[in-house]
Amino acid sequence: MLKQIDHIGIAVKNLNQQIEFYSNMLGLTCSGIEDVPEQKVRVGIFKLGNVRIELLEPTTPDSPIAKFMENRGEGIHHIGYAVENIEQHLKSLEEKNVRLIDSTPRIGAGGHKIAFLHPKATFGVLTELCEHQHVTTVNGGE
Amino acid sequence: MLKQIDHIGIAVKNLNQQIEFYSNMLGLTCSGIEDVPEQKVRVGIFKLGNVRIELLEPTTPDSPIAKFMENRGEGIHHIGYAVENIEQHLKSLEEKNVRLIDSTPRIGAGGHKIAFLHPKATFGVLTELCEHQHVTTVNGGE
Repeated sequence: MLKQIDHIGIAVKNLNQQIEFYSNMLGLTCSGIEDVPEQKVRVGIFKLGNVRIELLEPTTPDSPIAKFMENRGEGIHHIGYAVENIEQHLKSLEEKNVRLIDSTPRIGAGGHKIAFLHPKATFGVLTELCEHQHVTTVNGGE
Repeated sequence: MLKQIDHIGIAVKNLNQQIEFYSNMLGLTCSGIEDVPEQKVRVGIFKLGNVRIELLEPTTPDSPIAKFMENRGEGIHHIGYAVENIEQHLKSLEEKNVRLIDSTPRIGAGGHKIAFLHPKATFGVLTELCEHQHVTTVNGGE
């Protein structure tokens, strides 16, 4: 059902400071910074193979990431799994009575369709499904 | 420096219940259960591409995973990164004054060499380095 780990989301207070840490201390290369107004976060992206580390800095006090850090401090926030046909997955989970935050997808970083399962259903692990939007060029490639 | 995400460790109270959830609700296949006495955990392993989800159930009340859950409840515990030459990485991190839990590697699940960085150095993210031990057969393969 789930194809692969797509990304790990990490709640951070100071994105620039953490990008410096991941770059200089861990030797990773930041591939970009993206604003995601829908989630009220600024995202620093590191790619390791097919998996992204996403450092999530809240842009407003009512950002879900700010709320998370009020209770838990900085740290790992969620796991994102890549899926095909996210709507079908959500329907299947609802049929199995798995509690969802999003019963229909919304738009996340990179313009992808995303939906969160409820952490109470997943034993404290905030779990995201993510369907990548493939862009087809005029030549038919991706 | 870090090759790829090797695994995500998740603290769980009841391994059998969670294996059932990951199998029946998320459609993943458990590839094995392993006892790791050094870490005082029983580990349920799920493979997605090159990345493993490791569900970690404490086997004793003084297990580090039991202590984690006393404070934080069930949830994501750590990220493990695959590296070559773990000793060299640890030396390099010490030279950069990055605080470590393990300045020399110990043996983790699968007999691999592992070492943890201190979560205060990594902004609340417990971070593990993991060097896989390659087993060479008599034919010279792996």
